[in-house]
Amino acid sequence: VILYLAEDSAMENIVTEKKAEESHRQDSADLLVFILLLTLTILTIWLFKHRRFRFLHETGLAMIYGLLVGVVLRYAIHVPSDMNNVTLSCNVNASPATLLVNVSGKFYEYTLKGEISANDVDDIQDNEMLRKVTFDPEVFFNILLPPIIFHAGYSLKQRHFFRNLGSILAYAFVGTVVSCFIIGLFMYGCVMLMKQIGHMGGDFFFTDCLFFGAIVSATDPVTVLAIFNELQVDADLYALLFGESVLNDAVAVVLSSSIVAYQPEGDNTHTFEAMAMLKSFGIFLGVFSGSFALGVATGVVTALISFNFTKLRDFPLLETALFFLMSWSTFLLAEACGFTGVVAVLFCGMTQAHYTFNNLSPESQDRTKQLFELLNFLAENFIFSYMGLTLFTFHNHVFNPIFIVGAFLAVFLGRAANIYPLSFLLNLGRRNKISSNFQHMMMFAGLRGAMTFALSIRDTATYARQMMFSTTLLVVFFTVWICGGGTTQMLSCQKIRVGVDTDQETSVSIGPDGVERRSTKHESAWFFRIWYNFDHNYLKPILTHSGPPLNATLPACCGPLARCLTSPQAYENEEQLKDSDSDLILNDGDITLSYGDVTVSTDAAGAHTSGTPVGGVAVNSDEALDRELAFGDHELVIRGTRLVLPMDDSEPPLPLDSHRHRHKNETMS
Amino acid sequence: VILYLAEDSAMENIVTEKKAEESHRQDSADLLVFILLLTLTILTIWLFKHRRFRFLHETGLAMIYGLLVGVVLRYAIHVPSDMNNVTLSCNVNASPATLLVNVSGKFYEYTLKGEISANDVDDIQDNEMLRKVTFDPEVFFNILLPPIIFHAGYSLKQRHFFRNLGSILAYAFVGTVVSCFIIGLFMYGCVMLMKQIGHMGGDFFFTDCLFFGAIVSATDPVTVLAIFNELQVDADLYALLFGESVLNDAVAVVLSSSIVAYQPEGDNTHTFEAMAMLKSFGIFLGVFSGSFALGVATGVVTALISFNFTKLRDFPLLETALFFLMSWSTFLLAEACGFTGVVAVLFCGMTQAHYTFNNLSPESQDRTKQLFELLNFLAENFIFSYMGLTLFTFHNHVFNPIFIVGAFLAVFLGRAANIYPLSFLLNLGRRNKISSNFQHMMMFAGLRGAMTFALSIRDTATYARQMMFSTTLLVVFFTVWICGGGTTQMLSCQKIRVGVDTDQETSVSIGPDGVERRSTKHESAWFFRIWYNFDHNYLKPILTHSGPPLNATLPACCGPLARCLTSPQAYENEEQLKDSDSDLILNDGDITLSYGDVTVSTDAAGAHTSGTPVGGVAVNSDEALDRELAFGDHELVIRGTRLVLPMDDSEPPLPLDSHRHRHKNETMS
Repeated sequence: VILYLAEDSAMENIVTEKKAEESHRQDSADLLVFILLLTLTILTIWLFKHRRFRFLHETGLAMIYGLLVGVVLRYAIHVPSDMNNVTLSCNVNASPATLLVNVSGKFYEYTLKGEISANDVDDIQDNEMLRKVTFDPEVFFNILLPPIIFHAGYSLKQRHFFRNLGSILAYAFVGTVVSCFIIGLFMYGCVMLMKQIGHMGGDFFFTDCLFFGAIVSATDPVTVLAIFNELQVDADLYALLFGESVLNDAVAVVLSSSIVAYQPEGDNTHTFEAMAMLKSFGIFLGVFSGSFALGVATGVVTALISFNFTKLRDFPLLETALFFLMSWSTFLLAEACGFTGVVAVLFCGMTQAHYTFNNLSPESQDRTKQLFELLNFLAENFIFSYMGLTLFTFHNHVFNPIFIVGAFLAVFLGRAANIYPLSFLLNLGRRNKISSNFQHMMMFAGLRGAMTFALSIRDTATYARQMMFSTTLLVVFFTVWICGGGTTQMLSCQKIRVGVDTDQETSVSIGPDGVERRSTKHESAWFFRIWYNFDHNYLKPILTHSGPPLNATLPACCGPLARCLTSPQAYENEEQLKDSDSDLILNDGDITLSYGDVTVSTDAAGAHTSGTPVGGVAVNSDEALDRELAFGDHELVIRGTRLVLPMDDSEPPLPLDSHRHRHKNETMS
Repeated sequence: VILYLAEDSAMENIVTEKKAEESHRQDSADLLVFILLLTLTILTIWLFKHRRFRFLHETGLAMIYGLLVGVVLRYAIHVPSDMNNVTLSCNVNASPATLLVNVSGKFYEYTLKGEISANDVDDIQDNEMLRKVTFDPEVFFNILLPPIIFHAGYSLKQRHFFRNLGSILAYAFVGTVVSCFIIGLFMYGCVMLMKQIGHMGGDFFFTDCLFFGAIVSATDPVTVLAIFNELQVDADLYALLFGESVLNDAVAVVLSSSIVAYQPEGDNTHTFEAMAMLKSFGIFLGVFSGSFALGVATGVVTALISFNFTKLRDFPLLETALFFLMSWSTFLLAEACGFTGVVAVLFCGMTQAHYTFNNLSPESQDRTKQLFELLNFLAENFIFSYMGLTLFTFHNHVFNPIFIVGAFLAVFLGRAANIYPLSFLLNLGRRNKISSNFQHMMMFAGLRGAMTFALSIRDTATYARQMMFSTTLLVVFFTVWICGGGTTQMLSCQKIRVGVDTDQETSVSIGPDGVERRSTKHESAWFFRIWYNFDHNYLKPILTHSGPPLNATLPACCGPLARCLTSPQAYENEEQLKDSDSDLILNDGDITLSYGDVTVSTDAAGAHTSGTPVGGVAVNSDEALDRELAFGDHELVIRGTRLVLPMDDSEPPLPLDSHRHRHKNETMS
């Protein structure tokens, strides 16, 4: 579409340049506001951490600062607008992605930014300033969420995650779908009520209710998990909560897009139709499995590259860059194929942690972890401070008391319908039962966060979506501040033990109300055991330098294939690790640290490992299984040294720091 | 401006959504192309490094891959366009930054992307695909250049930089301006010639020639410096080249924007006018000093924060995030104030390296260095591969043989007019002369790179700018491939010594053609000495934990002020470092490693430092000056352990890696 427009003066060109420059300066200033907000948040977090103040997490704090800045922007600053005062008429019958405008012989290119509801048009003209601090909602999905989700997958505590895989999958898939429908139905009741008493100012269909159910079903207990991590709460509870929240984000994204895709044929666009329903279900399955496959595939390719280009280990910068680019390309590939990038990135992160991580040099292991930790930190705090800001700067809030009260009730009911019935069913099959205080804790930890926000801000064009967005903001604020802030109280109220050494626990006494005593050794489910054997015997040897050589695990007929796929390291590995430069010892020496606590010296740990053949030929006994899982569980290295006991007043020593201290002490002695 | 447009069908909405989705998928695919290009580059670089192949640097390689992909995109892929087939007429008399289009009752917002020359309009319609892989030129300035420039400032080798400060400033300021005018005048001659013989297809004024001179005066010897670093070429030559290239980027940016700002009053817009000239000169001074002040100010603020929030050191993540955000905010602040962000970021990086770096925990020192190293690596290779790509995908290339030949001659002349006369003048004042083979090497190392490209792609609207852009691309290609690839040959041809231990050299023998022997001890210039004393006695104690306590350096009357500004560490510092947990010992222990070579054990270094009071009370002797400079020169820690001798066939041990190896050996023993 080209618009040929009327001729004007030659000064237009300069004026346009001035305007573009002005706009760029304004953009810089707006971004600067956020950067300063984050800086302020960091300094305050530091103060909190320093004073061991646990009632407010950094994300909650970022929201408060965001709120304050939002108030200032909304009420204190008024920028008179002088540029939007021309109204013209013209004929265009489409809205293409690119528009060419001909002004006095010069062509200007315009790109489509999005649709604006008709009642906003005046606002836009009045308040350019507020609109400027409003980011394109796609920024959240395409820039800020991916590092958060990748980091979640990359830092998953693998041992306890895989031990509880069945329960986690049940909570994440069955639980999220149940929660979505419970919330959807309940909200539909509310909407009916509102229509009856005339409190509804626009359309609100059942699919909208379901969509609302899907977006508020994505839990994000980052606040709770930070406290769990600090207080060393039971690792199984941690794994259940973390695993569920990570996976249900993925489920909620795909579920919400399937609900949006529900479009019955013909005119009756908001009635039930079996074919459309089936199609939505097909979309759900297709998108989810496609994203899953893509994520895993990229992870495996990265593992293979880092496995075959072993000398890449000498160049940590190249290795880290490669790792970063491959992980990012997962996202882009998934988006380009029409799958969901965020979901692909999650599974890519998990695959990278499980395979590629073992092939990286120790330097790159640190670098990648630190890089994604930083990106996650910045993105998360940015999103939460933006959430605070947008409560005041967003112009189309629809706060409806009935809908809000209904939403809070629905969220509570949905969470309850997810946790309690599922836990009951799961306990029938689990040897290591999920005790009732754990269930209450999981119920309580159903915070809503970044994903819910990103999903709800993505489309705020209609009345229904605007009401959802406003309500979602309140749900997030409430859960992050109240539930997040009350975690320590809830933990002590539920008598959940803190300060548990994740690696040495064999039984848990739950206090007067619980009677279960359990052993972590023998709880593996049958399908986990099958997967584990396959992974240990075939995948790990092909993709990493750990694990047994393939010819020890493959049948004899596959001998030549096994020899060609097995790395020389695996053979050295079998020869009981005589070579002190072998990669395995390095890994092993690193990992063994996680068994002991902080006071164990590296010398002792080193002596311990050099005598113990780990990861040799395939053994299927429970001890080997347990040891192997600990071996792959790099995250524990961090936790092992971060140990902060609740009553401890000294500063928490941080991982590399403690290495350094030890190193320095050796140097000084 | 609002366009009220004709009504259309209800399906438009869905069509628009589809188009937006399509466009997003296309964007993802395009970005994916670049990511895969970078991945390929990394794998090939690894191969080169592994095989010690020095004729092609990673940036040259990235360009080649970019070229190949450009050829494929241009000639092999043809995407038929079906969306740009509507032509409409309308009246608009301005080109605002935001345009609202009313399509069938719905408002769509469009943002101004830029002006397009009239003869491109058909191209745009024909080749949406090629236009898609063309990034907004401002991306280079606002996203890719800042990390590169910051990293340059942050990794400046301070000791040798400050020792050669006078010469570097002369080359960067006087040299760049001389080069700009020489090239400008020479090109004006070429342009006159072209006009005579009718080879000129559009306007080309003298200011355009000067602008061309400014943009091709920004040298970027990244290829050469990488080889210098690997071969351990003389540190003074390295400092001269690196310092000059870093600063002349800043000079070139400001110079080019001042030339653009040259606008004589009235109609005679391209004649000489003293007032406009003075105004341009004022803009140059104002923008440069403003950016400088802002950059230094942010650096100092960060240093003060990290100085006062000492306990922040226990949280490397927060510290790193703060450092990153503060450095980024420099850029935004400068842009928001109308200064040049890139220049501000450069001086911010230098200040951070000089002050803030000393206050960071060792963990954060590693993290920040690694983070900016990674960002620099990715941004640099992205720019160079984009350069290759754009040779084929850019649609308005104007390759004029006379202009191109003229430009190559002019670039050569400009560089010669910069280096040789200035070196002669500088040698009159320098005790440590710049020998003729060093001058030839500096002449040869005048590569053009990222900055030249970013400046030339910023505005390609007119015929003159298009011709400049095409010519600049060829200059960059030629210098990076030919001069970059010939560095080792040039080094051996000029008989410049390689494998110099930067810290123990006291004299340099230059071979048969050179007769100078020099000592690095006594070459400091007078103004450097004044600055050093001020910095050492007043700034370092206020901004870092190193340096003497203030009350030892301030006059007695300032006693209370000194006590309130001095940190407790500085006093401990004075008490001859009895406390083994003191921050200073840690720093000192780290730094001392740089004195020895790789085989020096940490124990020996530790024992050495604990007995040596460094940074105690102010001493003005040359020995203390020398020691203090080495103390602040963190970069040397890296170089000290990376030592790769040219004939050495073993893999280069990398900094943390070598620590680890040592650590591991201790563990295993």
